[in-house]
Amino acid sequence: MAEALPSGVTSLAGSLPAGELEALLGAFRGYEAALMSNDIEVLDGSFAPGDDTLRGDANGLLVGHERIAAFRGLRGGVARRRIVELHVRVVAPDAALLVSVSAFDAGGTGLQTQLWQRSPAGTWTIGAAHVTGAPPALNRAVWRMAGTPLVPASAPGPLAGTTVAVKDLFDVAGFSVGAGNPVFLAEAGRASVDADAVAALRAAGAAVQGIAQTDEFAYSIAGRNVHYGTPPNPAVPGAIPGGSSSGPATAVSLGQATIGLATDTAGSIRVPASYQGLWGLRTTHGAVSTRGLLPLAPSFDTVGWLTRDAATLRAAAAASLAPASGGVVALRPAFVVAAELLEGCDPEVAAAFDAFVAELGGAGERVELGGLDAVFAAFRTVQGAEAWRADGAWVAAHPGAVGDDVAERFAIAAAITPGQELDAREVLRQARERFDAALGGRVLLLPSASSAAPPLDASAETIAAVRAATLRMTSVAGTGGYPAVSVPLMRVRTPSGSAPLGLCLVGPRGSDLALVDLAAALAAIAYAPE
Amino acid sequence: MAEALPSGVTSLAGSLPAGELEALLGAFRGYEAALMSNDIEVLDGSFAPGDDTLRGDANGLLVGHERIAAFRGLRGGVARRRIVELHVRVVAPDAALLVSVSAFDAGGTGLQTQLWQRSPAGTWTIGAAHVTGAPPALNRAVWRMAGTPLVPASAPGPLAGTTVAVKDLFDVAGFSVGAGNPVFLAEAGRASVDADAVAALRAAGAAVQGIAQTDEFAYSIAGRNVHYGTPPNPAVPGAIPGGSSSGPATAVSLGQATIGLATDTAGSIRVPASYQGLWGLRTTHGAVSTRGLLPLAPSFDTVGWLTRDAATLRAAAAASLAPASGGVVALRPAFVVAAELLEGCDPEVAAAFDAFVAELGGAGERVELGGLDAVFAAFRTVQGAEAWRADGAWVAAHPGAVGDDVAERFAIAAAITPGQELDAREVLRQARERFDAALGGRVLLLPSASSAAPPLDASAETIAAVRAATLRMTSVAGTGGYPAVSVPLMRVRTPSGSAPLGLCLVGPRGSDLALVDLAAALAAIAYAPE
Repeated sequence: MAEALPSGVTSLAGSLPAGELEALLGAFRGYEAALMSNDIEVLDGSFAPGDDTLRGDANGLLVGHERIAAFRGLRGGVARRRIVELHVRVVAPDAALLVSVSAFDAGGTGLQTQLWQRSPAGTWTIGAAHVTGAPPALNRAVWRMAGTPLVPASAPGPLAGTTVAVKDLFDVAGFSVGAGNPVFLAEAGRASVDADAVAALRAAGAAVQGIAQTDEFAYSIAGRNVHYGTPPNPAVPGAIPGGSSSGPATAVSLGQATIGLATDTAGSIRVPASYQGLWGLRTTHGAVSTRGLLPLAPSFDTVGWLTRDAATLRAAAAASLAPASGGVVALRPAFVVAAELLEGCDPEVAAAFDAFVAELGGAGERVELGGLDAVFAAFRTVQGAEAWRADGAWVAAHPGAVGDDVAERFAIAAAITPGQELDAREVLRQARERFDAALGGRVLLLPSASSAAPPLDASAETIAAVRAATLRMTSVAGTGGYPAVSVPLMRVRTPSGSAPLGLCLVGPRGSDLALVDLAAALAAIAYAPE
Repeated sequence: MAEALPSGVTSLAGSLPAGELEALLGAFRGYEAALMSNDIEVLDGSFAPGDDTLRGDANGLLVGHERIAAFRGLRGGVARRRIVELHVRVVAPDAALLVSVSAFDAGGTGLQTQLWQRSPAGTWTIGAAHVTGAPPALNRAVWRMAGTPLVPASAPGPLAGTTVAVKDLFDVAGFSVGAGNPVFLAEAGRASVDADAVAALRAAGAAVQGIAQTDEFAYSIAGRNVHYGTPPNPAVPGAIPGGSSSGPATAVSLGQATIGLATDTAGSIRVPASYQGLWGLRTTHGAVSTRGLLPLAPSFDTVGWLTRDAATLRAAAAASLAPASGGVVALRPAFVVAAELLEGCDPEVAAAFDAFVAELGGAGERVELGGLDAVFAAFRTVQGAEAWRADGAWVAAHPGAVGDDVAERFAIAAAITPGQELDAREVLRQARERFDAALGGRVLLLPSASSAAPPLDASAETIAAVRAATLRMTSVAGTGGYPAVSVPLMRVRTPSGSAPLGLCLVGPRGSDLALVDLAAALAAIAYAPE
């Protein structure tokens, strides 16, 4: 039987009408050649048109020719490989499954399964493809380093068995802090002791799985890093992960860590939690020690965690919050909402939030926070001034070392005058008094972000607009120093299906643990069968 | 259209005869339930019988129901998951492709593509499956830790751009040595300086990608580690990787590192090279410093490398061999063979070797090495005595900490008397003189191992027999202190297809670089188009 096989075919089951096997193999080889030359036109034409076409890999499943084409436009080619096995399984006179093994020039093998179908016009195209590439040692978009574990727990405790993805801003003894930038990393010395937030988790029984990537200097909420790549968003294939705690968030989504140890200055925990359907807590400002943390804007910087469930989030918080410094204030379970917060949102987000609140039974009083645009502007000014004090000297001394978007942000920050900063601080001081009065110790509900996760191919303008709209919402907690928890309780429709959206609960300062408990109770109600 | 979809189906294209969609979905759900309960019988029955059935994942493609069933018997169940998307593509009245997305309870998502076909008897079974699970942060069977890189190069040099998988026996500054045993690791202090072999590669421009797994204390050639699991053999899906340099070898095979920095006491580089189709060099005893290397048997321990090509192997060797200590002796390109070396080989291996030598034009003179069984016994005795001196105190103080097979080896080693060791050393001294005389500065050719890579489900008896047969061959270089390079030049038939087999070139002491050059020339001839 072996001598009957066409060249390059390892095994064949079934038969096709005369000439069609050659036509199919020709289409397969043409597709493979187009992959090697990244001939987008041929590649697009090799996949069947329409919404039924499928393409999946370790980053998820794309449905429909349009999404597959968009992915391909971003991919920038496939690693050089040659086909070393090809198994043909004819299923019908016009359909065959081709399963091939490829050997990559750079080592490793891949596996491709393709359903080829012949159109009435006689053209063979791919109706469904499943691709497994050669995996790297670790996904450098997610992790800077990882171990089994990288550092063990320092004591038994309630977090025994959990693993932590540490955002690359925290000192881990023996390792350097890279802050998402390889030049900064190369110059960094090794830490001699753990950051307090790392030590607290290790002392409670958690092991450090690894050091996870961040947007450069945590100065972004998109989760895109020009040096290490963009971590996937497992909840929305083809979308950005959210940042700046992108690595810890994706590591937790992927099940590669139990806890993401992260920071939230202006949404860096809440946004990736919202985009990826995770739980995330930004703690009361000052409630968790920032010793051993590379600062971005100390007036707003907070430590927090990303998890897949409420119980783990609470345990991480309980292990880390110093009782004396807050986090244990009890909470009045009264909810308020503020219509102004929804002004910049995507209509889908506002609608989803309104529907959720309506289901809750109206969720209490509507409050006026007042002057949110001015507050947001002042927040940005103070954040920028502090970020420049933290990192400006380094950024100025290393022209070209920082990605364009973050560099632009630092350039704006560099131009902030002392007078502008002083005025902005006064705006924030007044806003804080106003917010405290309006909230009155109650819990403010809002969406965690202004939109679902934007697609990977979103323009710089779109990303900037999303950032402004989201920071307008997230800076309320930053301004008030409030704790805020993002809970994966909503979904919004997107052009390609649906995507998660976080419900954000903002509580009074010091109510961190009670806020997580309240969120967990809310989630239990929301998820309860009707 | 959405309301017409059966429960649990995300999208559907095409239609089946009446009742068959329900039957297909029932079979799919039954298979999924059997996966969750690891009901081997149902799982085996869910896959179509015969040799055409396919099942692939990141570890490779299995062809035929029998091999798939063998894999399943070893797997021990699937991580708990639920199906969150199911796309049905009907291809023919009796065939449909099912593409499903699963969400794992422990986080992360998976993708399954299955070709289901209805038998004439009306039963739906899987003819081909492609599975992508949720990837871990790193494969703990291969890596103990890894980074991007873990440690950068210390200087530019000829190895710039390469990455190294360091066998977990070498000191890497800032990290501990685990030697394949988690208890040993937990007690180990962090190294303050790199082992000389690590420093040499870094000084030549190579970065340390990570620390890779080893058989416990390097005291095995199988590549199975009871604590961290067995690394895959990318060249032979379903087979063991070979050891003890299993992690570095698999890392290089997978393209996750350019160079595996390893050790070879009794075949620990040559065997995984042979099993995985890699290049591997065991250096002249003493030619590369072992400072910073955890010893196994210092009389035989050597440093060496595993690579995917000859040029990289030569560059790694050139960067590491101290000119004063050898490695640069010129070579007389005259080959000899010794029939006694083939006595314990698999017949397929002996046949492949004989055929290769015949193609070379006879490859020169046949030599008598003499008394190989006695040499092997003496080698084992001295190796055991030295291994016990190196690790015995630790092993004795930690009962139960070491896997059964290695523990048994240490137990035998512990019983070796000083008199037995002395006698064995005399046997080896005489053998060395005899080998030197027989080889006369020429290059001995032999297979790198006594067999192709045994299957993962090989019995302990089979593994022990393979070890004895292989060590009888590899201990010639160990006894003589000779350099030996394994070159991926042969293949042997196996029950499931074919598998690589290394050609081993053993040269005179100090001829390391010339030996690699000769091997490269031989490979160029062997690969040359006819």
